[in-house]
Amino acid sequence: MPTVKVYYFQVKAAGESIRLLLAYGGQEFEDIRVAREDWPELKPSMPFGQMPVLEIDGKKYAQTIAIARYLGRKYGLVGKDIEEDFQIDQIIEFFNDIRIKAASVFYETDENMKAKKQEENEKNHYPVMLKKLDEIITKNKGHMALGKLTWADFVFAGMYDAFKFLLKISDLDEKYPSFKKLQEKVLSIPKVKAYCDEAPKSDF
Amino acid sequence: MPTVKVYYFQVKAAGESIRLLLAYGGQEFEDIRVAREDWPELKPSMPFGQMPVLEIDGKKYAQTIAIARYLGRKYGLVGKDIEEDFQIDQIIEFFNDIRIKAASVFYETDENMKAKKQEENEKNHYPVMLKKLDEIITKNKGHMALGKLTWADFVFAGMYDAFKFLLKISDLDEKYPSFKKLQEKVLSIPKVKAYCDEAPKSDF
Ligand SMILES: N[C@@H](CCC(=O)N[C@@H](CS)C(=O)NCC(=O)O)C(=O)O
Ligand SMILES: N[C@@H](CCC(=O)N[C@@H](CS)C(=O)NCC(=O)O)C(=O)O
Repeated sequence: MPTVKVYYFQVKAAGESIRLLLAYGGQEFEDIRVAREDWPELKPSMPFGQMPVLEIDGKKYAQTIAIARYLGRKYGLVGKDIEEDFQIDQIIEFFNDIRIKAASVFYETDENMKAKKQEENEKNHYPVMLKKLDEIITKNKGHMALGKLTWADFVFAGMYDAFKFLLKISDLDEKYPSFKKLQEKVLSIPKVKAYCDEAPKSDF
Repeated sequence: MPTVKVYYFQVKAAGESIRLLLAYGGQEFEDIRVAREDWPELKPSMPFGQMPVLEIDGKKYAQTIAIARYLGRKYGLVGKDIEEDFQIDQIIEFFNDIRIKAASVFYETDENMKAKKQEENEKNHYPVMLKKLDEIITKNKGHMALGKLTWADFVFAGMYDAFKFLLKISDLDEKYPSFKKLQEKVLSIPKVKAYCDEAPKSDF
C-alpha cells in the first residue's frame, strides 16, 4: 500500500472531502492537521502555497476538487460514460458558485459592506440557488448526481458544515432537509463512520 | 450530426472556450449571442439561470468548465489515465483561483474598496500566482498541462482576453510571454482559426 498523507488545517472544510474519500477507499493515511502558527513554514513546500494537499509516495496533489475527482475515479465513484461524468462535474461547479457567493461575504473586511453583501445574498441569491440545489438532490434520490453515490456526495458531505457556517442561514437543515440527509448518508457509510469516530473533532 | 447550439453573451469570456472546442472538433453549431436586453426572457430557460450553455439535440449542458472537460473528452484532448487527467484538472482550478481574485475586484461596487482590493491583489497575489502559472506553462512546453494540447489550453485561450481585462495589468503579455503564446498557439489551429476569422468580434 502506498504511503499517503493529507495536509490541511485543523478543520473539516475543504480538506474533509479528501479525508472521507480516502476512508471510503480503505486507504490509510497520515492525517496532518497543520496549526495556523506552523503554516508559514510549510506553505512554500505546497504546490500552490495552499492546502489541502494530498501526498502519495512523496508526490503532491493540490486543488480540492481535482483531488476529489481523482480519488473518485480511483474508487469507482464516477459515472459510466462522459455524459454521466458531466452531470457530476456540473453540479460540483454549481455548488462551487454558491460557496463563492458565501466566501465573498466571509472575506469582506469592511463591516458595512459585509452586512450589505450578506443581505444581498440572502435576498437575491441564496433562495434561488439553494432551492435549485435542493431540487437537484431530491431528484437524484438524495444524491448530488446520477441518483447514486458519487464523489460529488463526498465533496458535499465534507464541506457541508463549513458551507453552513459561511452561509449563516440558521435554519438551513430544516429549510432544505435534503442537505443534512445527504451529509448523514455519506457519514454513515461504515468505513467513513469509522474514520469520523476516530478523527479530531471540529465545528466546521 | 447532432444539432448543437451555444448560448452566451456577446463576448468571448467564459463562452469562448466552448466555441473554440466545438470548432476544433469540427462540430458545426449555432452561435447564439444574447443581447443584454434579451437575457431576462431567456434566463429562466437555462439550467442554472446563467450562461454559457451548450445544447445538443435539445439537451442543455451548463457550467463552463464541466462543458469544456466534456468536450475535451469527446475530442481526445485529455490525458492517458487518471494521473494525467488530474494534472489538467489541477491547473484549471489554479487558473480559476486567479480569476476569482480578479472577479472579486470587478464585482466590488464601492470605489474605495475596489481600489484597495486591486492594490492588495497587485501586491500580494498576482505576482506570485502569475509567476507560478507562467512557470507551469513554460515547464509544459507552452501548454497548461502534460506538455501537449489539452482542453485546458482551450479554456485558457478562450478566456485570456477577459482575464487580461479583469486583472488590469497592462503589460501582462510582455511580463509573462508564455500566456500570449499559448493563446496564439490555440487560435492558430486551422479549424479554430477558421472559426475565429468568421466569428463576431469582441474585445474580451
Ligand atoms: N482552489 C484551492 C484553494 C485552496 C485554499 O484556498 N486554501 C486555503 C485554506 S481553505 C489556504 O491554504 N489558505 C492559506 C494560505 O493561502 O496561505 C482548492 O480548492 O484547494
Ligand atoms: N459557474 C458558472 C458561472 C456562469 C456565470 O457566472 N455566468 C454569467 C456570465 S459569465 C451570467 O450568466 N450572468 C447573468 C446572470 O447571472 O443573470 C460557469 O462557470 O458557467
